[in-house]
Amino acid sequence: MRDVAIVGCGMTRFGRREEDLLGLLTEASLAALDDAGRGQGPVDALLVANMGSGILNHQTGVASALTDRLSLLPAPAESIENGPASGASAIKNAFLAIASGLYDVILVAGGEKMRAVTGWEATDFVASMSHPQGEYPYGITLPALAGMFARLHMAKYGVTSEHLAMVALKNHEHGALNPFAHIQQAVSMEGILHRPEAVVNNPPIAEPLRMFDCCPVSDGAAAVLLCAAEKAAEFPRPPIRIAGFGQATDTHAVHQRQDPLDLKAVRLASQAAFKMAGLKPGDIDVAELHDAFTILEIVESEQAGFFPVGRGHRALEKGQTRLNGKLPINPSGGLKARGHPVGATGVAQIVELVWQLRGQAGERQVDGAVNGFSCNFGGFGNNVLAFVLSGE
Amino acid sequence: MRDVAIVGCGMTRFGRREEDLLGLLTEASLAALDDAGRGQGPVDALLVANMGSGILNHQTGVASALTDRLSLLPAPAESIENGPASGASAIKNAFLAIASGLYDVILVAGGEKMRAVTGWEATDFVASMSHPQGEYPYGITLPALAGMFARLHMAKYGVTSEHLAMVALKNHEHGALNPFAHIQQAVSMEGILHRPEAVVNNPPIAEPLRMFDCCPVSDGAAAVLLCAAEKAAEFPRPPIRIAGFGQATDTHAVHQRQDPLDLKAVRLASQAAFKMAGLKPGDIDVAELHDAFTILEIVESEQAGFFPVGRGHRALEKGQTRLNGKLPINPSGGLKARGHPVGATGVAQIVELVWQLRGQAGERQVDGAVNGFSCNFGGFGNNVLAFVLSGE
Repeated sequence: MRDVAIVGCGMTRFGRREEDLLGLLTEASLAALDDAGRGQGPVDALLVANMGSGILNHQTGVASALTDRLSLLPAPAESIENGPASGASAIKNAFLAIASGLYDVILVAGGEKMRAVTGWEATDFVASMSHPQGEYPYGITLPALAGMFARLHMAKYGVTSEHLAMVALKNHEHGALNPFAHIQQAVSMEGILHRPEAVVNNPPIAEPLRMFDCCPVSDGAAAVLLCAAEKAAEFPRPPIRIAGFGQATDTHAVHQRQDPLDLKAVRLASQAAFKMAGLKPGDIDVAELHDAFTILEIVESEQAGFFPVGRGHRALEKGQTRLNGKLPINPSGGLKARGHPVGATGVAQIVELVWQLRGQAGERQVDGAVNGFSCNFGGFGNNVLAFVLSGE
Repeated sequence: MRDVAIVGCGMTRFGRREEDLLGLLTEASLAALDDAGRGQGPVDALLVANMGSGILNHQTGVASALTDRLSLLPAPAESIENGPASGASAIKNAFLAIASGLYDVILVAGGEKMRAVTGWEATDFVASMSHPQGEYPYGITLPALAGMFARLHMAKYGVTSEHLAMVALKNHEHGALNPFAHIQQAVSMEGILHRPEAVVNNPPIAEPLRMFDCCPVSDGAAAVLLCAAEKAAEFPRPPIRIAGFGQATDTHAVHQRQDPLDLKAVRLASQAAFKMAGLKPGDIDVAELHDAFTILEIVESEQAGFFPVGRGHRALEKGQTRLNGKLPINPSGGLKARGHPVGATGVAQIVELVWQLRGQAGERQVDGAVNGFSCNFGGFGNNVLAFVLSGE
């Protein structure tokens, strides 16, 4: 199996965008190709990560359209769908295709045009990944699942609404330093939780989760250019190696898990990624976790092995996961502030890690970061991928 | 790169089915696992091929759901979408994942629940793969593109409506021998073309194409179990090796091609597949081509290299592509008679070839078949995959 490195990356600003899906994917792809010093040079194959082009945009065959738009014909191309973990799934398939020896250079572009629909339609679209018999028909949405999960976790481990808000505060603070983030504004605990008007500005979504516990609905795209490590020297940027990855599935319906608090797929995927990389959680300098809901960042930081189970909120309150802490989590702002165009997210996490490991992250740079970790969470933890990247 | 073999395969009957998408995928997957002598034994990863679960079934994350349904947790899984070539794209990605050395055994299941919608909605769904700016908004459907293409081809090469009908006749005759086919009934030239009532029974769809020139709208699923060739002896069936594959893209909008009659992606994909296999078109004993419209079988038989360009209809009229001809094409009945659940088709083509190369195809067996070829055609030729299988 050949080693694989990332030699180019780029993304669009996330948020409310005028461009259609193809326009967003094109913008991110051209940025990644430019970053790799390739302009529109030869690429052996493309993979597009997207969850909802059918439901949101009434469009299929997006990978063929992008290949044409980028003047990369006749390169092979297809789309990968794995709910909000589509991005990481596409990178995994590209990794394996290069590792096989058949292709040397593959472009992965992940994107979503979510604001093609509005309000309840966006929530309903996201709920299309819930169990088609056991969850969806009963009206369970992803915020509802996350709310019930948060309530259970709070009861068991002493996590409070203030802890949840601390995740939002931290990630909005980081996001304010990220020119690609959907929301580039810091918030205060007073403003979102304690002032009388907080009940209006930060209303309950699914108790105990309030609006600032949930990621926004964003448009956007991100792209990376992967290359066989043995050929990475042909590119100008220092290659960032994909040292390891892991993936695991769990029961589709959350209520079928023996312990609904046990996000087993996060644990298994993380363990597999560390094993392949030959590294431990303690070797990681920066992590991008999937904080679609604030509670998830806390729990993933535990299941990935960074903190003991039930202690993630303690590390958070001590500031260990802030930009200058022991293990900065979501320096990009995370899904909470950077935004969550679902098909783009897994790729955007890798883009942020590459920038961090190259030392290109500007005001949000984690000093001397060498190894990075990402967790991309599909369904409500039913399909999770983890990556370990290394700049060494 | 490790060699890869197919060690199990299965499919549902295609047609109007009561089961939902997940039910169809499960039925085909269990058939493939049973065929491989594995029951629900260990599988390293899954890939689902599907084009329309979002538009047709308001469902995403189908691969996670299938993995759970098959009790294959925590195996990694995701879906691959490449329009009507999704099936071949999924097999390609599974091939590369095994070739890389990371996984030994991967289940690929392709399926579509097309009859969740009816009439014009099905045609509109298929049109979602056309160019989102250059074709779809103008109301161009796939039958419309195929009609214009057929008209041009007929004018240039002397192909007649009778030639098109000969494809339908042949494939319905073959389909009548296939217990998995949607339509298991032979038709006559008189009945579909010359009798007065033919204008009612076989009405024009998009001139010069009539109803019997178009595949039906079908539900169904097909599945194959792929394995590293070096481990194939662990399975009871004789392994069928994936000797080669090729894939190529072409302009998304058909009108942007220099010569709209030149299905370049079919030619490039076929050439690449033969090159990897170290075989020539003359070495092939049986072929499954993508006859979504009758004209396509004729043109693909030329671009794949079986007959000179403009001579495919001559081979057809001589009976060379019938079951007992020189090169039997679509012994399964093809898309025309077996049916075309879009995400299933590329996998079903491979299932048929495996049955043929194992000598298990019953009344439609091609005697002594050793090498098989498939062409899975995405968009209107904008993303095409070809496989060469070998039973040697």
